[in-house]
Amino acid sequence: MTDQNAQAAVVPLEGWHVLHLFYRIEHGQWALLSAEEQIEAKTNLTELIQEIRATADTQLLVFSMVSPKSDLGFMLLTPDLHTANAFEKRLTLSLGPDILVPAYSFLSITEESEYMTTDAEWAQNLEADEKLQPGTPEFETRMGEIRARMTKYKKDKLYPILPTWEVFCFYPMTKRRAPEQNWFALPFEDRKRLMAGHGRVGRQYHGKILQLITGSTGLDDGEWGVTLFAHDSYFIKEIVYKMRFDEVSTKYSDFGEFFIGLSLPLDELFRRLQL
Amino acid sequence: MTDQNAQAAVVPLEGWHVLHLFYRIEHGQWALLSAEEQIEAKTNLTELIQEIRATADTQLLVFSMVSPKSDLGFMLLTPDLHTANAFEKRLTLSLGPDILVPAYSFLSITEESEYMTTDAEWAQNLEADEKLQPGTPEFETRMGEIRARMTKYKKDKLYPILPTWEVFCFYPMTKRRAPEQNWFALPFEDRKRLMAGHGRVGRQYHGKILQLITGSTGLDDGEWGVTLFAHDSYFIKEIVYKMRFDEVSTKYSDFGEFFIGLSLPLDELFRRLQL
Amino acid sequence: MTDQNAQAAVVPLEGWHVLHLFYRIEHGQWALLSAEEQIEAKTNLTELIQEIRATADTQLLVFSMVSPKSDLGFMLLTPDLHTANAFEKRLTLSLGPDILVPAYSFLSITEESEYMTTDAEWAQNLEADEKLQPGTPEFETRMGEIRARMTKYKKDKLYPILPTWEVFCFYPMTKRRAPEQNWFALPFEDRKRLMAGHGRVGRQYHGKILQLITGSTGLDDGEWGVTLFAHDSYFIKEIVYKMRFDEVSTKYSDFGEFFIGLSLPLDELFRRLQL
Amino acid sequence: MTDQNAQAAVVPLEGWHVLHLFYRIEHGQWALLSAEEQIEAKTNLTELIQEIRATADTQLLVFSMVSPKSDLGFMLLTPDLHTANAFEKRLTLSLGPDILVPAYSFLSITEESEYMTTDAEWAQNLEADEKLQPGTPEFETRMGEIRARMTKYKKDKLYPILPTWEVFCFYPMTKRRAPEQNWFALPFEDRKRLMAGHGRVGRQYHGKILQLITGSTGLDDGEWGVTLFAHDSYFIKEIVYKMRFDEVSTKYSDFGEFFIGLSLPLDELFRRLQL
Amino acid sequence: MTDQNAQAAVVPLEGWHVLHLFYRIEHGQWALLSAEEQIEAKTNLTELIQEIRATADTQLLVFSMVSPKSDLGFMLLTPDLHTANAFEKRLTLSLGPDILVPAYSFLSITEESEYMTTDAEWAQNLEADEKLQPGTPEFETRMGEIRARMTKYKKDKLYPILPTWEVFCFYPMTKRRAPEQNWFALPFEDRKRLMAGHGRVGRQYHGKILQLITGSTGLDDGEWGVTLFAHDSYFIKEIVYKMRFDEVSTKYSDFGEFFIGLSLPLDELFRRLQL
Repeated sequence: MTDQNAQAAVVPLEGWHVLHLFYRIEHGQWALLSAEEQIEAKTNLTELIQEIRATADTQLLVFSMVSPKSDLGFMLLTPDLHTANAFEKRLTLSLGPDILVPAYSFLSITEESEYMTTDAEWAQNLEADEKLQPGTPEFETRMGEIRARMTKYKKDKLYPILPTWEVFCFYPMTKRRAPEQNWFALPFEDRKRLMAGHGRVGRQYHGKILQLITGSTGLDDGEWGVTLFAHDSYFIKEIVYKMRFDEVSTKYSDFGEFFIGLSLPLDELFRRLQL
Repeated sequence: MTDQNAQAAVVPLEGWHVLHLFYRIEHGQWALLSAEEQIEAKTNLTELIQEIRATADTQLLVFSMVSPKSDLGFMLLTPDLHTANAFEKRLTLSLGPDILVPAYSFLSITEESEYMTTDAEWAQNLEADEKLQPGTPEFETRMGEIRARMTKYKKDKLYPILPTWEVFCFYPMTKRRAPEQNWFALPFEDRKRLMAGHGRVGRQYHGKILQLITGSTGLDDGEWGVTLFAHDSYFIKEIVYKMRFDEVSTKYSDFGEFFIGLSLPLDELFRRLQL
Repeated sequence: MTDQNAQAAVVPLEGWHVLHLFYRIEHGQWALLSAEEQIEAKTNLTELIQEIRATADTQLLVFSMVSPKSDLGFMLLTPDLHTANAFEKRLTLSLGPDILVPAYSFLSITEESEYMTTDAEWAQNLEADEKLQPGTPEFETRMGEIRARMTKYKKDKLYPILPTWEVFCFYPMTKRRAPEQNWFALPFEDRKRLMAGHGRVGRQYHGKILQLITGSTGLDDGEWGVTLFAHDSYFIKEIVYKMRFDEVSTKYSDFGEFFIGLSLPLDELFRRLQL
Repeated sequence: MTDQNAQAAVVPLEGWHVLHLFYRIEHGQWALLSAEEQIEAKTNLTELIQEIRATADTQLLVFSMVSPKSDLGFMLLTPDLHTANAFEKRLTLSLGPDILVPAYSFLSITEESEYMTTDAEWAQNLEADEKLQPGTPEFETRMGEIRARMTKYKKDKLYPILPTWEVFCFYPMTKRRAPEQNWFALPFEDRKRLMAGHGRVGRQYHGKILQLITGSTGLDDGEWGVTLFAHDSYFIKEIVYKMRFDEVSTKYSDFGEFFIGLSLPLDELFRRLQL
Repeated sequence: MTDQNAQAAVVPLEGWHVLHLFYRIEHGQWALLSAEEQIEAKTNLTELIQEIRATADTQLLVFSMVSPKSDLGFMLLTPDLHTANAFEKRLTLSLGPDILVPAYSFLSITEESEYMTTDAEWAQNLEADEKLQPGTPEFETRMGEIRARMTKYKKDKLYPILPTWEVFCFYPMTKRRAPEQNWFALPFEDRKRLMAGHGRVGRQYHGKILQLITGSTGLDDGEWGVTLFAHDSYFIKEIVYKMRFDEVSTKYSDFGEFFIGLSLPLDELFRRLQL
């Protein structure tokens, strides 16, 4: 029985806890280990990754990070904050003390968008676009389809299945509260309309970019964490650049550090990182 | 007789001193200790925690901090600044030199709100809302009840009993002094009105969030320290996010780093932190 | 067969990946190596540089960096992000663990300018400036010449051949999104006109300055990386200073850290850096 | 004969040099010293403090600093910059190499206020408030008293005698030069009027707070250093908070890091800092 | 033959390269050297300083820096960037690896002011102030004198002889590009007029302050480096403070870190720095 189960669980009312963890490898320290100790250390990390992935409702992605500002990256999703905390502390020490040096980390919780189209709006759209009358069987059939899609959409936001696409990108984001550019001073309807435009840009990258936005207000030094997955880094550059011209980003968004990682099988990853 | 009693006490006219202390654990250094020395170190910290908790009017909470930016957190309340200073230096060294590396700290003093409803305002409310005439026995009875509640409320702010809820959150806060968003340039009545709205959001989280605001102007690099306790991190995210839309935060508040911790029994904590 | 070929390539739809890598040399660590180990380390770096340069479509420049904030600089161009990642990790460790300490790095992708003169604009220019009628053989000949030049120009941006001029300068750049100075809120035509003026300043330095602008939005903490090559550092100072008075820079550009390096043969470089 | 007398003195035309020096103690390094070496180190620091205090026109205060961001603090006043420099370098090394690690420092020169009431203004006040006629003996007697008080006041600013109150507070301060809040763009008379209001708040803390403002424009990264002494940290919080509502601070002041220290006899200080 | 002559020189079209180099001394590392090695290290630095000073057109000043943020400072002027780079790398290592730890550095090139009074303006002044007619012998004589003075003035800016005054001050400076305070958006004539007023303040300190402004746009993280020399630190504080009220600084200048050093004979310097 593992440590993280010993406490009463701290599971969010909705969603899962998310930890993005980026480390630099202290190769000077690593070189002090004997060949045997190095193998043991890699076995230890390998087994910990297996243990984490075998934990209920828990997912872990592992990345070779690009550019020397970080070497090894993890993205961990798990319901219980105790589990997240226990796994995080163990990951940091998995290769031995002082080998993985934290470069950046981010705590957030998965969330659905507060600006989703409501049932009433969908009903209105059906009348306007498809000329269906409320109460008719056709109307109800369509509404049922829509409700099912929205339920799935919401579930995919709150309880996502992480993909294994090649390229990974993470950055924290806040919304501005400057006198002339104050996101939080805008009426809900304005924010909803602006976010809809933002979403339209995103949908142009269907099949090229997968995006997961998680909430961190009160939890870490940013209001949202943005995780992008791609097959080609070109589209990460293109979508984030195009978004800059969308009013939400142009006027209301500030961005933190950007991190790029590559998905690799674990043995490849060890080789890549010269472990 | 301990060191901190040797000096004339530096006790605030009102309130207690508060120290938030967050440390990273230097596991490389810890690994250099023998098994015996490690046990001794943990015994030393355990006994120091007991000594602190046995000190008059002194409280200490201990947390496993989430995300690698810090591992071990303390929240210390005590009247005398000498006591706070002595305990803080001893806590830092409690596991041996260079084991606990300071990651962040915050010095503040508990305080009552300057915007509390006055006796005169309560009297007015009684007349308006409950149709009671000043001087009548009913009026005086109600006023007596109210005064007792306010006295308790004020005492709970100045001399709080810290709860042992699972999730702990701390962040420093300042109020803006920008040309168009200058909190300190607002008349007292405007600030009072704005803070009342702020308070209404807070009260929606009764039973879900406990909040303690302590003052640090002149004492540390922020004007206030905000400590939140919760059973579910979800509500920390929700309340801080909702507050963003409240005018006080939208226009006048700036926030520093956010720290999240978990309350654990000491033996669990040592295991969690792999000590 | 090298590590970086083991994975499916991550090659941008257009352009190459670019890594700017600046390191400080930890001479204390270097001094711990025996004379033999030092020679081995330098041979290792020399061979790695040869291997990189022998890789298809891959270029590597090496610099002695000026001022103690960094000692050794690399500029790497290569199509596959896996290759970039593998070479970067190997360069960092090329002289042994803890010898090259990362001081700064920047990931970007080569790109063509989005503000280039279009075919339609060229046609219009031909009519206006050279009084040629569309459809006439003279017109078509000129348009053919122009299209060939533009194709080459675009190819030089996306797939540049790096020069070996003496002086190297790098800095990251972002465009402002402030209320009154918001680049991304300007209409495309305004941005195009402003960039044309910017280009005119640049062309005054033909033969004195070579400039390569690469895109990093979404990839690193800046929107563009600017690389300048010169024979005389005087012209780097002059062109960047003159650009400050050009509206694009005056009102819309923010700059990060500036790095200056000198191109040296590898044996000279080792001597210069006292390796 | 000590080192600092070997050079021609660099003594300010008016005032003394002031160095605020805050250090963290590297206990890992300290633990490497033998018990004998530790006693020697403490004797060395004790004797250096005595030597500094025995130097003409030279004062030194020593503090146990609160919160882990610094442990040991010094405040040094001395006329000659060579003396300040020599003592500072010796203090840093007084406990042995790498024991005292600089956490923050601040160089300034004592100065009188440029906004003091002039003789002419005092004369005017005498006429208006005390109905005294210039030239009369009563007037001249009162003016003589006033001039003597102002001479003493100015001397206390330029050549202050540092108190030994329990609580010490230091922070750097700059005045804003923003478009709408530009202190340096205000006419002298406006600045004088604003500073007078500022002074009135200060005088409410007579006997509770002692304040010394020293000038550092051109000398360090702030325009002024503010040193406060108190018996109770409560009043440090209260006065700095109240000042926030005074127009000078509300609109024109920016503050750096805040440092709080406690005055202790040297043997107590060593115990407090676990040396 | 030294390393720096092996490459084709990189000499600016006009002016010399300037490096400001500030280091902290790692006394823990220094203490590991034997007495013999310490003497050897100091001899090495002494000889390097002599070699640098014996290099054509090359000047080097050495300072004991005030306050622990830096201990040892150099100011190096030399035409060839290769020479500057080679000497800089050697100075950093002159006392052995890890003894001199870079605290701050700044690369710039000497330059003449772009706002100097032109020949035409001087001629106009002669007519207006001295009532001399162009073409007359008196006029030509005066113009000859003026041209000679301007030639010398310009030469003193581009190829200055560094003084050996006691007190040294350095800080980087940028000009603002904010919407309402944009230096680079001002017409040349406005900037020239503002700089003339700035110059008038400077001239009040003739004999008290020597000032050298060098250009670093494109070369380092500031647009200019300001070096001041004085006999008394009082005047450094006074001139920089007075300049704050001059419109150029009040509205358009931002300042970086300030560094203060003291000129000392090398043997005194070693004693001062406890080497």
